[in-house]
Amino acid sequence: MDAISVIRTKRDRGRLTDEQIDWVVGAYTRGEVADEQMSALAMAILLNGMDRDEIARWTAAMIASGERMDFTALPRPTADKHSTGGIGDKITLPLAPLVAACGAAVPQLSGRGLGHTGGTLDKLESVPGWRASLSNDEMMATLRDVGAVICAPGTGLAPADRKLYALRDVTGTVESIPLIASSIMSKKIAEGTGALVLDVKAGSGAFMKDVGRARELAATMVGLGNDHGLRTVALLTDMSTPLGLTAGNALEVRESLEVLAGGGPADVVELTLALAAEMLTAAGLPDADPAKALRDGSAMDVWRRMIAAQGGDPAAPLPTARETHPVPAPTTGVLTRLDAYAVGLAAWRLGAGRARKEDPVQAAAGVELHAKPGQPVQAGQPLLTLHTDTPERIPEALAALESSYDIAPPGTTLDRTPLILDRLD
Amino acid sequence: MDAISVIRTKRDRGRLTDEQIDWVVGAYTRGEVADEQMSALAMAILLNGMDRDEIARWTAAMIASGERMDFTALPRPTADKHSTGGIGDKITLPLAPLVAACGAAVPQLSGRGLGHTGGTLDKLESVPGWRASLSNDEMMATLRDVGAVICAPGTGLAPADRKLYALRDVTGTVESIPLIASSIMSKKIAEGTGALVLDVKAGSGAFMKDVGRARELAATMVGLGNDHGLRTVALLTDMSTPLGLTAGNALEVRESLEVLAGGGPADVVELTLALAAEMLTAAGLPDADPAKALRDGSAMDVWRRMIAAQGGDPAAPLPTARETHPVPAPTTGVLTRLDAYAVGLAAWRLGAGRARKEDPVQAAAGVELHAKPGQPVQAGQPLLTLHTDTPERIPEALAALESSYDIAPPGTTLDRTPLILDRLD
Repeated sequence: MDAISVIRTKRDRGRLTDEQIDWVVGAYTRGEVADEQMSALAMAILLNGMDRDEIARWTAAMIASGERMDFTALPRPTADKHSTGGIGDKITLPLAPLVAACGAAVPQLSGRGLGHTGGTLDKLESVPGWRASLSNDEMMATLRDVGAVICAPGTGLAPADRKLYALRDVTGTVESIPLIASSIMSKKIAEGTGALVLDVKAGSGAFMKDVGRARELAATMVGLGNDHGLRTVALLTDMSTPLGLTAGNALEVRESLEVLAGGGPADVVELTLALAAEMLTAAGLPDADPAKALRDGSAMDVWRRMIAAQGGDPAAPLPTARETHPVPAPTTGVLTRLDAYAVGLAAWRLGAGRARKEDPVQAAAGVELHAKPGQPVQAGQPLLTLHTDTPERIPEALAALESSYDIAPPGTTLDRTPLILDRLD
Repeated sequence: MDAISVIRTKRDRGRLTDEQIDWVVGAYTRGEVADEQMSALAMAILLNGMDRDEIARWTAAMIASGERMDFTALPRPTADKHSTGGIGDKITLPLAPLVAACGAAVPQLSGRGLGHTGGTLDKLESVPGWRASLSNDEMMATLRDVGAVICAPGTGLAPADRKLYALRDVTGTVESIPLIASSIMSKKIAEGTGALVLDVKAGSGAFMKDVGRARELAATMVGLGNDHGLRTVALLTDMSTPLGLTAGNALEVRESLEVLAGGGPADVVELTLALAAEMLTAAGLPDADPAKALRDGSAMDVWRRMIAAQGGDPAAPLPTARETHPVPAPTTGVLTRLDAYAVGLAAWRLGAGRARKEDPVQAAAGVELHAKPGQPVQAGQPLLTLHTDTPERIPEALAALESSYDIAPPGTTLDRTPLILDRLD
């Protein structure tokens, strides 16, 4: 077995055998296949594809490259959620404690933001004292005691994926459905969750702009999960406009607290409850009532204990930005479009995101929305407010927001895209 | 400008701009674009192609990565030949002194063998004392004094190509017509020859098995040369059976000496004279008479001086193998097929070639043919003779030769493929 023959097979539109896949993933993890060989193979996979069996084997090989976690000793069923990422997507924050309050355990391994999308760990780090890294024992203890944990994955989980992901990032080989699907699913299967709900986003602020491609990715991941004995469901959701009214780390924590307090923007509540219902059903708890757990404060209670378990002070005030800058609506009318990608880019430029993995983020930076598509706006009144500790970057953020919205004459009715576009299982 | 955007352009079937090509080739040569990025780009080029303008610019960028030689100070016109490589292809050895004997100067930068095809420098190194490496000044002096030089290219010539070629070799990205054509032509154009004749081979022993692909490669290279102001002609020649009656280093030198002495196998003489005529015509010497230069010993005289100029002793006996092993014909009849690839593989296994760049070769190892397709053979008489210093490898060589030939009943007439299939200019 050698790397060149594996590359040639895929280059010439052949099917990789199980032996080829097992060998190349293992040898790459051990450093016996060089980065330049794996990137050529990744490009051949991106351009020539893999069939369902190849993707399943590739995923299995990535799982086999590292350790697997096991939550079967917990007294509760486990359920996890993965979102492909969008602007203002803070759903994990209220969702994990909510599902735990309803009786499931939620082992939520999360990531950091890169580029214009935010990361759940960055958001939680705006809570004073909170830390993302836990040992496996600490994670297990928090799951047992609190029922929900949101933390960084340990380095032992699917090391092949971690290495390959970093390579794809610099070689233009990210946008491959087989490689994206196997990357996400290898981590989730190795993590050992009993049920998984995927939130696959489509639209300008999503990784997949096109609904057809997003549906293909969702179907691939649902197939992979179920083939591996993991109950997997996907919701296909709209990401043409930001979720909720905030994009930015502390701003999104604040909005999540509103949801946990029984309030919050309608779309965030709708998606949180829909994903909670799917997770609870998949975990074998179809009779749970997540809406009640938001109303009666039990979800908020889990949140406070979850934050405290990781060193955070749930009562401490969240950081606020040194400067805020309103962006007024130029005319009176109805907001008919507010582009997710533009808002994400503006929040990034204000300091909420990072350009390189090693960059810090500003906890308080971001964009606050004062209206959502379909709502009326008044000329001269704020449409958005920019938050930043580095006001010199406000002009760049304003440039990102140019032509990012449309306002129609007063009284216009908008045919709104539903938030949840489809469900796959 | 960044590597990922260049990779994405080609990945998404776009056209690379002149600026993208100049930047990526230059930055790769300087080490600013990483190997794993260039290999992903090479795979995208292999699978999605480049148009004529892109190939021309890519070639120009590789030329610009290093120095250019200049032979205009020589009193004679220059002409060079490049073969895409085949089994028993020793043509450069008689051809360079022959063309010099007819009045042109031949600056022949050659390579070493890898895999089943032999390298001209390996062949010449079987001449006692001969050395392949010359400084630019030594090369120029030999061209002035002798008229022909066969040597290794200096490291200053198209360094981008040298780096990229080594990368393609280990990443399954060799078989791309745009990359092969630009690799060959960048070296030949940087070398500064005034005319170039290409011998593009098709058939089992060639890099391109398929005549259509070989023709496409020839047309691409002829176009590239002429676009760069280099008079370029290509012959498309058959490589389904070995050239001449020998494959192996010293064996091929011996056969070349027969040709220079006015004898030698008909096919080697035919191709040598055809290429000589093309080179001389392209160099502005259409009235030269290469057949006469073989008959009257003037080509042999240049050979002796050329070998001596590089430290070789043209009168010293050539090395012979420790062991020879005849392969008898199993039946009496007419040889109708003798596969070039199988003979090349056998010679390689006997020690004539190398598996890795750093391996040594055996000067005396190889395969001697006693019949060519169309000729009669006698049961029990040798069809081939194997030569090697490592007789333990004879069984492997015999395995390579299994089903490598067909013998038809006596009296069968063979419709033979012509040696020269086509000419492109």
